[in-house]
Amino acid sequence: MAPWINAIREVVGEKHLHTKASSLLAYSYDATPNFQALPDAVAAPRNTEEVAAIVKLCNEYHVPIVPRGSGTNLAAGTTPTQGGLVLLFHRMDKIMEFDDENLTMTVQPGVITQDICNLAESQGLFYPPDPSSMKISTIGGNINENSGGLRGLKYGVTKDYILALEVVLPTGKIIRTGGKLAKDVAGYDLTKLFVGSEGTLGIITEATLKLVPQPETKKTMLAIYDSMEKAAATVSAIIANRIIPATMEFIDRPTIQAVESYAQIGLPVDAEAVLLIEQDGVESVVDQDIQEIQAICTENEAIRVQIAETEADAHALREARRTALSALARLSPTTILEDATVPRSEIATMVRAINDIASTFNVTIATFGHAGDGNLHPTCTTDVRNKEEWERVEQAFEAIFKKAIELGGTITGEHGVGEMKSPYLALKVGEEGIELMKAMKLSFDPNQIMNPGKIFAKSTRKRVVVQT
Amino acid sequence: MAPWINAIREVVGEKHLHTKASSLLAYSYDATPNFQALPDAVAAPRNTEEVAAIVKLCNEYHVPIVPRGSGTNLAAGTTPTQGGLVLLFHRMDKIMEFDDENLTMTVQPGVITQDICNLAESQGLFYPPDPSSMKISTIGGNINENSGGLRGLKYGVTKDYILALEVVLPTGKIIRTGGKLAKDVAGYDLTKLFVGSEGTLGIITEATLKLVPQPETKKTMLAIYDSMEKAAATVSAIIANRIIPATMEFIDRPTIQAVESYAQIGLPVDAEAVLLIEQDGVESVVDQDIQEIQAICTENEAIRVQIAETEADAHALREARRTALSALARLSPTTILEDATVPRSEIATMVRAINDIASTFNVTIATFGHAGDGNLHPTCTTDVRNKEEWERVEQAFEAIFKKAIELGGTITGEHGVGEMKSPYLALKVGEEGIELMKAMKLSFDPNQIMNPGKIFAKSTRKRVVVQT
Repeated sequence: MAPWINAIREVVGEKHLHTKASSLLAYSYDATPNFQALPDAVAAPRNTEEVAAIVKLCNEYHVPIVPRGSGTNLAAGTTPTQGGLVLLFHRMDKIMEFDDENLTMTVQPGVITQDICNLAESQGLFYPPDPSSMKISTIGGNINENSGGLRGLKYGVTKDYILALEVVLPTGKIIRTGGKLAKDVAGYDLTKLFVGSEGTLGIITEATLKLVPQPETKKTMLAIYDSMEKAAATVSAIIANRIIPATMEFIDRPTIQAVESYAQIGLPVDAEAVLLIEQDGVESVVDQDIQEIQAICTENEAIRVQIAETEADAHALREARRTALSALARLSPTTILEDATVPRSEIATMVRAINDIASTFNVTIATFGHAGDGNLHPTCTTDVRNKEEWERVEQAFEAIFKKAIELGGTITGEHGVGEMKSPYLALKVGEEGIELMKAMKLSFDPNQIMNPGKIFAKSTRKRVVVQT
Repeated sequence: MAPWINAIREVVGEKHLHTKASSLLAYSYDATPNFQALPDAVAAPRNTEEVAAIVKLCNEYHVPIVPRGSGTNLAAGTTPTQGGLVLLFHRMDKIMEFDDENLTMTVQPGVITQDICNLAESQGLFYPPDPSSMKISTIGGNINENSGGLRGLKYGVTKDYILALEVVLPTGKIIRTGGKLAKDVAGYDLTKLFVGSEGTLGIITEATLKLVPQPETKKTMLAIYDSMEKAAATVSAIIANRIIPATMEFIDRPTIQAVESYAQIGLPVDAEAVLLIEQDGVESVVDQDIQEIQAICTENEAIRVQIAETEADAHALREARRTALSALARLSPTTILEDATVPRSEIATMVRAINDIASTFNVTIATFGHAGDGNLHPTCTTDVRNKEEWERVEQAFEAIFKKAIELGGTITGEHGVGEMKSPYLALKVGEEGIELMKAMKLSFDPNQIMNPGKIFAKSTRKRVVVQT
């Protein structure tokens, strides 16, 4: 056994250091198809001090560390690309504090996102970020990836709710950033930098979250269209009327068909687009907004508008969107869910472009996503074992990313760059941007032990030499 | 004339490069008392390309560059501490685009903040950050300092409204960050890093701002107390009732007295604290919130609660807070306005501590500020020519910063570190934090030409050698 593994075993104890083939295999992949690499060991530290001791050892031995929550990442962000150590956080899963006066919650990284939402709700408060994986994802993973969700337009993303962090730096030193403060300009904003840094700058060991008052009520509606343009025009018209809905999701025709075949919720399978719209807030305002939105849908030639009368109805409507991925995933052995994002005004153009690209490369792509914030999820149903098709799938996604950039968008709205999208990062940030980010990375992590092979392609791709 | 000055003259033209003593003197200070240093030259570029050419020259000749908006900085952030070049932006003052579909505005750095608010308002939209200097401050200055204001609690600060930037890096290369996107996780978040970096990482040459729908209405009220504790208890109780007012400001007894003597608006000069509270939003909700807030004020033993019935009344009430600094500034030759910030729950404790510290060091400090977000403005009326008193003032502020940190706060909520607070930064971020920030700074700006002497104390204090 490599000496670094023995040293880490001494830190966490025999029971919490795994090197058996079955354990290594279990942590060799995340939710991203076609990316896999075996770690050399897996450790589950108990507290910040153990994390610091582990990181110090890894830095000394130049061993890659991959922090991992529940492994729901969709960009190969938590695969141990260069081997080394996978760090688990299920033993650091405590909600440390709920502060009713400052409306904050302080949590360890292993806490499940849904548990945070539940505790907040029980106190009349609200933690808005709601990535689709929230029932199983950890807050540590959400922070590393700056996770989004269905409420981004009105409420923002994870970064907007992180007030303070405790971080173990690549040197093993522990720092605290931010505070229970609405305003803090003491030096560079390390808090916002760590959020979304994909585990490449340090290990997050504690976070203080901002909570907001829980909206009094929420209403849900569905609008059905015979063209994507009309649905997109509705989205623009709602915003032009100065209404910001809590959620404004869309699913396209192939997604509608897959969902209906999977869940039989009465969607018209010949519709071209469905919008799922929710508004929350004070009851009178929500009622008024929903009425106005209904009128706007009708003006923009929705075939049908359904407003949920009960929570059960609302739940059924939400299912149309929530089951999209599961429904599509049934269609083929491999499902690639992407998240190219464009300015809201470009949604219809982008969906049209995606369809053209799919047909050019002869691949099957269904698209759904967050219409309100332009965050699309073109989803390819394919089979990774079909090498020839796989190549066309990759070409199609490259074309999609390029189109998103051309329209003023980005290669990833909420999934992260990971290993998967690292070859495309230059499309968004340019060579200058990558150079700057790499210099920053080196200033934090000179030995490049923190989740190597992620964000940056090529030059960090070669395996770090592990001293054994 | 130094060769770098001649080279820059060639870039901007004779008319826009100043080296006369009177010009240099005019840009030797900002709004911070007792900090002054002469630049070697002052240049007003016309566009990004000229900025890039200038920065490239400064980098070649190792000349410090100090970007400067309207010079309203309160932490000596725009003083040319180490000489070099002051860069002005009054020729880059265009609103480039208003995008009604994506609710954004794209502006050059020299645009006056108030003009942005006015244009937004004319379109039924709202740009919330409202630093007190907004009538004369530039958006470039606001971005460099991550300016706050009176609406931080509900609406956040400048950083929350910057979607994209064009930045000239210290090498002279131009990059673009972000986009008209609610979600973007392509690499490290350079946008949020540049906002609030005090001109030490690059020169901002364009920014895309996020706008939100304009609140339908706004109501204003004043509550008067015979103790600071009761005012602070009111603030806590409002939040505990899950109401987030747009503004929740307080002024203490010495401030009340100064304001009343200055503006004669009928404040009771024997009151210990006054809260100015505003709520905005849909009319019915605002009415209900204001009623609830009034009841909470009464429960917490406010001596008197005044609700403005007309906009003229509201304006008069706001004057109590808006004139605080001017009123205090009349009392003595020198006014030091600080911005130590604590968690909201610690406001009463902090105000008490400030009063104790003032009496310990025998200095005069009045305190007002943003009660909702714990951002206090202890303001010392003194005379910088009185060396002995000045020393006590400095000791008092150091004690105030330390107390704020002890209570979980920060040394600066919205003014920035600048040169003035650089000796105290370690109190907040630790030596580890400073080391990390310095390494980041060097990764951007290896020759340390960008606003040197700011944020970081001591080791960057020695004057950079200018090759002449």
